[in-house]
Amino acid sequence: MPSPDLAVIGGGQLARMMQPPAIALGLRIRLLAEGPDVSAAQVVPDHVVGDHTDLASLRAVVADAPVVTFDHEHVPPEHLRALDAEGHACRPGPHALLFAQDKAAMRERLGELGVPCPRNAPIASRDDLEAFGFPAVLKTTRGGYDGKGVWVVRSQADADDAFAADRPLLAEELVDFRRELSALVARSPSGEMRTYPVVESRQVGGVCAEVVAPAPGLDPRLADEGRALAERIASELDVTGILAVELFETADGRLLVNELAMRPHNTGHWSIDGAETSQFENHLRAVLDLPLGGTRARTPWTVMVNVLGGDVDDLEAQRAVVLAAEPDVKVHLYGKSVKAGRKVGHVTAYGDDLDDVLARARRAGALLTSG
Amino acid sequence: MPSPDLAVIGGGQLARMMQPPAIALGLRIRLLAEGPDVSAAQVVPDHVVGDHTDLASLRAVVADAPVVTFDHEHVPPEHLRALDAEGHACRPGPHALLFAQDKAAMRERLGELGVPCPRNAPIASRDDLEAFGFPAVLKTTRGGYDGKGVWVVRSQADADDAFAADRPLLAEELVDFRRELSALVARSPSGEMRTYPVVESRQVGGVCAEVVAPAPGLDPRLADEGRALAERIASELDVTGILAVELFETADGRLLVNELAMRPHNTGHWSIDGAETSQFENHLRAVLDLPLGGTRARTPWTVMVNVLGGDVDDLEAQRAVVLAAEPDVKVHLYGKSVKAGRKVGHVTAYGDDLDDVLARARRAGALLTSG
Repeated sequence: MPSPDLAVIGGGQLARMMQPPAIALGLRIRLLAEGPDVSAAQVVPDHVVGDHTDLASLRAVVADAPVVTFDHEHVPPEHLRALDAEGHACRPGPHALLFAQDKAAMRERLGELGVPCPRNAPIASRDDLEAFGFPAVLKTTRGGYDGKGVWVVRSQADADDAFAADRPLLAEELVDFRRELSALVARSPSGEMRTYPVVESRQVGGVCAEVVAPAPGLDPRLADEGRALAERIASELDVTGILAVELFETADGRLLVNELAMRPHNTGHWSIDGAETSQFENHLRAVLDLPLGGTRARTPWTVMVNVLGGDVDDLEAQRAVVLAAEPDVKVHLYGKSVKAGRKVGHVTAYGDDLDDVLARARRAGALLTSG
Repeated sequence: MPSPDLAVIGGGQLARMMQPPAIALGLRIRLLAEGPDVSAAQVVPDHVVGDHTDLASLRAVVADAPVVTFDHEHVPPEHLRALDAEGHACRPGPHALLFAQDKAAMRERLGELGVPCPRNAPIASRDDLEAFGFPAVLKTTRGGYDGKGVWVVRSQADADDAFAADRPLLAEELVDFRRELSALVARSPSGEMRTYPVVESRQVGGVCAEVVAPAPGLDPRLADEGRALAERIASELDVTGILAVELFETADGRLLVNELAMRPHNTGHWSIDGAETSQFENHLRAVLDLPLGGTRARTPWTVMVNVLGGDVDDLEAQRAVVLAAEPDVKVHLYGKSVKAGRKVGHVTAYGDDLDDVLARARRAGALLTSG
């Protein structure tokens, strides 16, 4: 195999969706995949099967790759520091990625920067929780995602599962929010940044169900503030690639930072079909320090609906049904087997009329989820 | 490797550009590639290196693929008929593809259908040419493309090269045309059809240099006629997949059919970034008999400029230059080494103002061609 332009650690759908813009730009990806037929390994010829927690596997994959980037945030920080020390350009670097890996470190750093966050405190004991007060949201500081490792607690009894996990915990105030928003920015090592329109992210059971771009009826002042927050955090934390800042819009009209992700993010999937440059293309351009592309929406409204594993076992057979029902909805399947609640694809509709766009995307999503 | 959803014969840029929509739709391609690192083999993991003129290689690749389609029209007709007889679903089928492989057969059939064509006649001798008259365009009936195998002759002396080729020839009148147009249609085995807007194709030296979608200032009556011609030809010839009908718009305002291609076509590359559904996605949907997607343009104007091998040896290094100069132009590189005049990529710009769109696409194209 010729030398790759970059190595991607992790073979999930985010790595898979990097491949189409890599094909267009003539970029060669080398992939570290969890198995021979995981989502991204199906579409990236130059892949190595290995474990991202094994330093030898990481070293083998990044050997002749000038840049390393990630499908997920689960590479152990000590391995990232080792690769960095050995001269590999990890983007984002370990010093930045730490704040997406460790929620306590993230809250501490954002607090120092004066970025608005929910009130929060590290929790080492029942007494700490008592002192923090109820209701509270307890989170494991590492490894949680899609609602996993998160507990809403209104009493000490509610916190039994959280303490049983026996992992470092963070408490956050239970925010009275109007809705959830997301601000995405692409940032290059040279400091160039491009922010996407702020979107609304609608969650069900802690998992993103649908995204509306741009966030309907958002006060332009808050939209500007969301984009400025994303740019400020990306700069201060020296993020390279895509940074997703998940936000609460509070009932009293403020923005608070909920979570950070330093990779293409579910709330940016709308950009594949809806923006001038997709988040995946701009992630590649950013980590390779290539000039970034435009981030404007191509139509007034774009709606992305996640396809979670549901009643439809044979997604491929259902593809014809959904294309017949909604021929203009863009269907994205991840090549993953169906398990209940697993993200196995998404659909995107766009147009001038939000009600129509929303209805079409939801119909297509429902056909792939429930049949 | 799991069974593929379709086999693609030929590993050029057309097969390469089928892979992004295949990834989105969750379709697995198996490729017959001319070499281990040809354009499409770089991006399709399941590829076999072999020769498309060798029936055994073809059989090995299509073995467990329910559908077979093509990057080019060079598979020998007898091999296509053999695969067809063995039960493989070649799309387009040999009975259709013949008319894209053999210009004499195409002219005869279109003549029977009453489709407007330049005056033409098969040429077996100098006497035949004398009888046809001058000026004339002589073409080899098979194997010509991009201006190869085509001679404009104004005398018997001009025809020396054509006769020296010692291959069957066809003479056509030298059409007094205003410009060249192209009408693309996707057609499914079930008969569903979707036509793209008629575009203007600007050729230099017999090679497509740029495409403007839609064709500027085209009489709506001629646009309708072009689309209707494409649909009629696709139906009558039972084409499946994309059919490209290259047209002359004559000086006196008529349409004449110039060439047919039965695969995604250079004059449809604008659709990747410019249409609701790209020609590559609709080709896949058509050959798999999936419902077709919308073919409308997403913006008033889209311009595609070909990148032909020129003064720039290192396209990858030049990528940063063109993205810096034109961050919103979409760059498509084919992973091919640069040779003079070889198609190695294309760029696409879109927007509301044709002059601006044209200028941006040309600037980007020139930076990749001439530096």
